Amino acid sequence: MTRYTLGLDYGTESARAVLVDVANGTVVATAVAEYPDGVIDEKLPGTDEPLPPDWALQNSSDWLATLEATVKQVMAESGASPESVVGLGIDFTACTVLPTTADGVPLHTLPEYRSRPHSWVKLWKHHAAQPHADRVNALAEARQEKWLARYGGKISSEWLIPKALQLLEEAPDIYAAADKIVEGADWLVWQLTGQLARNACAAGYKGTWHKIDGYPSAEFLAALNPGLATLYRDKVSEPVVAPGTRVGELTAAWADRLGLAAGTPVAAPIIDAHAAVPGGGVTGPGVMFMIMGTSTCHMLMAENEMLVEGIAGVVEDGIVPGLFGYEAGQAGAGDIFAWFVQHGVPPVYHEEAARRGVSLHDVLTEKAAALRPGQSGLLALDWWNGNRSTLVDAELSGLLVGATLGTRAEEIYRALIESTAFGTRIIIETFVEQGVPVKSIVAGGGLSKNEMLMQIYADVTNREIAVAGAAQPSALGAAMLGAVAAGQAGGGYDSLADAAARMAPPPSKVYRPIPGNVDTYNILYAEYKRLYDYFGRGHNNVMKVLRGLRRKG
Amino acid sequence: MTRYTLGLDYGTESARAVLVDVANGTVVATAVAEYPDGVIDEKLPGTDEPLPPDWALQNSSDWLATLEATVKQVMAESGASPESVVGLGIDFTACTVLPTTADGVPLHTLPEYRSRPHSWVKLWKHHAAQPHADRVNALAEARQEKWLARYGGKISSEWLIPKALQLLEEAPDIYAAADKIVEGADWLVWQLTGQLARNACAAGYKGTWHKIDGYPSAEFLAALNPGLATLYRDKVSEPVVAPGTRVGELTAAWADRLGLAAGTPVAAPIIDAHAAVPGGGVTGPGVMFMIMGTSTCHMLMAENEMLVEGIAGVVEDGIVPGLFGYEAGQAGAGDIFAWFVQHGVPPVYHEEAARRGVSLHDVLTEKAAALRPGQSGLLALDWWNGNRSTLVDAELSGLLVGATLGTRAEEIYRALIESTAFGTRIIIETFVEQGVPVKSIVAGGGLSKNEMLMQIYADVTNREIAVAGAAQPSALGAAMLGAVAAGQAGGGYDSLADAAARMAPPPSKVYRPIPGNVDTYNILYAEYKRLYDYFGRGHNNVMKVLRGLRRKG
Repeated sequence: MTRYTLGLDYGTESARAVLVDVANGTVVATAVAEYPDGVIDEKLPGTDEPLPPDWALQNSSDWLATLEATVKQVMAESGASPESVVGLGIDFTACTVLPTTADGVPLHTLPEYRSRPHSWVKLWKHHAAQPHADRVNALAEARQEKWLARYGGKISSEWLIPKALQLLEEAPDIYAAADKIVEGADWLVWQLTGQLARNACAAGYKGTWHKIDGYPSAEFLAALNPGLATLYRDKVSEPVVAPGTRVGELTAAWADRLGLAAGTPVAAPIIDAHAAVPGGGVTGPGVMFMIMGTSTCHMLMAENEMLVEGIAGVVEDGIVPGLFGYEAGQAGAGDIFAWFVQHGVPPVYHEEAARRGVSLHDVLTEKAAALRPGQSGLLALDWWNGNRSTLVDAELSGLLVGATLGTRAEEIYRALIESTAFGTRIIIETFVEQGVPVKSIVAGGGLSKNEMLMQIYADVTNREIAVAGAAQPSALGAAMLGAVAAGQAGGGYDSLADAAARMAPPPSKVYRPIPGNVDTYNILYAEYKRLYDYFGRGHNNVMKVLRGLRRKG
Repeated sequence: MTRYTLGLDYGTESARAVLVDVANGTVVATAVAEYPDGVIDEKLPGTDEPLPPDWALQNSSDWLATLEATVKQVMAESGASPESVVGLGIDFTACTVLPTTADGVPLHTLPEYRSRPHSWVKLWKHHAAQPHADRVNALAEARQEKWLARYGGKISSEWLIPKALQLLEEAPDIYAAADKIVEGADWLVWQLTGQLARNACAAGYKGTWHKIDGYPSAEFLAALNPGLATLYRDKVSEPVVAPGTRVGELTAAWADRLGLAAGTPVAAPIIDAHAAVPGGGVTGPGVMFMIMGTSTCHMLMAENEMLVEGIAGVVEDGIVPGLFGYEAGQAGAGDIFAWFVQHGVPPVYHEEAARRGVSLHDVLTEKAAALRPGQSGLLALDWWNGNRSTLVDAELSGLLVGATLGTRAEEIYRALIESTAFGTRIIIETFVEQGVPVKSIVAGGGLSKNEMLMQIYADVTNREIAVAGAAQPSALGAAMLGAVAAGQAGGGYDSLADAAARMAPPPSKVYRPIPGNVDTYNILYAEYKRLYDYFGRGHNNVMKVLRGLRRKG
């Protein structure tokens, strides 16, 4: 009998289910369903009350509805029997958190809280806790909190403490009523199994948990706000386990509802970006996995814990048990190119795209690919959306230098792509210089399909870059977690490394650096680095001055 | 009887004649005619021989044909009698030079030279003598030639010595056959009067002449190339006279041909940009006149000669006899905005312009005018076409900083306009700091019609800016020269100041700084200046590195 594992991939707008052959990783069925309420950022469903700026919520009931729809669909399409599914794994956005009762009922589903925005799920990209994050960072820096250095010296407004602090201060009754504050991923596993555990990936990367030191102290929390002192003790107190750990088994009720077998092992979940690492075949130290989309996330594992300047996080067991998972990122990549395509390209290119029936990206890529490195005479700092690693500074902004009256759109397009490649090289060199080896690189995500872009990345970094073979590496990674939760005895694998070795497809393509291009890019990179340090490290604060003037009413 | 003066304005593509009432400056008739051969930059007329890159020639016969056509037209339209025309003045592009025989026959009109590009008129924007200019500058710097400092430490490939050196080295037989090498303006006066003199404006600003020191020495020329040693002694030997000086009178033959009176006084000519100074009503010290078009030229007079860093030239009698005329410039202004409009604006703006039947500049100006200073969060260095003053460096290039995913086209458009205003402020401050007073500012040229732009210039410089009332200030200035050549006794004026006082119309508009805007622009200017020095004065040579990589084949 063929055995399968079920991967559930919870994104920002939709959920995806994949049914995967445990023996070889073949995806035998896929289903996608959009969340009925989508991203809630204008008004609460069923009300006309507008949400304040920077709010972004979700409806936890949408997760259950899409779960049922997609799982039923893949089971029906594949014809697989319930017993042939050995395990179930989940990847999920984070930090996406909700307040619940002690038995897991989301407060926003209760009539008394339904009309209160703070009772709903705060989606990862809820940015309204920025003032709270600023206070967290200032206090942590003033107190020289040890954990701060593990996150490059600054945590994001997207993370657990700022979100919890905002809840406490803006809706203290809801904070008090919340027996638990829980990541959506862990809540979903709790629903399916009746067991609540905290996955080390979200706990570590978004919840400031550390395997040895635990969470930030009650003293620190009390100094932020006395009411917050017991946050971790009371509301986030469950054990933290590595992704893939078996948290429990599918309850009879949920087995019924999904058409699966009761008792099916359910794995501790993982953040969506991190799921792509094993899904891309990476389970060991020294291999950087880059997910390249609107922004880029760089993940890397090592056997030791180092504090690397400007790296967004390091978490033991965060990706693979027994290894330290490092995370860095570029705040803008594909969204910079999309901005340019939408706002900086004259009609003649649009007309060519329409005439030829291709995208504007295709037209620009074709023309930009005809340029040799350096030919545009342009250089950019890729900070249109700020800089995440290594400067951790959202107030930085984009810069373009070298423009002449002869500058054309495809040259700017190429310079923008090159600038993101230089930004990746800075991150790689920062890891290497500070003792975290980078032996090879694997890429996934939408941008990894652009051949010109990938060749530029290979040339700029002077490293081979393999493109992950999986079409949906996050969903495949989630499925691998299900196989690991089953264990070899249960028809799966005993480790993520074993699972990936059998289930991850080979790279779809390998890009190799072209020596002449490498030489030119070394020259350009030296210039990029000089600008990076000059504008990014306080030698010239023009970007801050410009932000300030922009905000002034 | 109403008395008139005739102004002839020789531009790059066409010639214009204006017949002007001497008493009050009213333009009673205007005629424009395009040069039949236009700018000759692809192949010589009548041949298929392609010209090398960066060549730009003219046909001197076109000047005569358009002279005849336009003068006849204004005389016919106005009904003025030949005797009512008291004088004739000319403004002309420079350095626009041609080789001629001793009696003024252009070599390119002789059958034996017609097919040789070097026998034709080299137009001001012929840039093929850049290697020669580089040698001139290197040698002059090495020899610490005194005259070099009067031109900001560098002369342009457009000027006389580089053009003559190119002629000598690439066509020595034509150089030898050229009894005279002469500015188009002086040649035209020579044709009309039979008298050859050199106007101090072109001689000083383009021919490196100085009223006390004369021309660069034969030793210097010989060190460049022994064949060049006698350039000034043999081929450019005539007296240098201030614009407006009576060089001679119209010959009977030309009087016949033009329908004017024989004996009509003809003035020593002036460069077209400089003609706009008296045409704009400026004839005294301390008033800066800016011609704002594709590029911007800043002219200013003073009673003393100072060597001002990075100023393109200082010439005694260059504009008004008895005063030192200073010239500075910005290599890009309107052409930067035109570049952006053509190459950086997405279709939605084009569609709005088409729908409303206005220009894209109008649409962008309207949206940009709605922004307050600083609101865009952008700052630019206006070096898309290099920097003329105060850095004298064509290898510099444009820079934009502050871009975000929210940046829109009108914000970039406004930042580009602001950047050119900051560049003008640098020039003003350079003059003032180095001892050349700037008491007020008058503007002319196409950009001076853009109200948003002019208000930005007033706010950035924190000075009132008057817009010259004359529709065609250069042509009006040329007509004033004709009146001065006539003298009061001849129905004109004894000085340019007298002529301008009666003939220049009052400003069409005066822009006054708005205090709140001034404060914001002071902050932005400080940032501009820091970037200006950093990228322009060798602290960071990224722009040079980028130019180098661009050229590398």
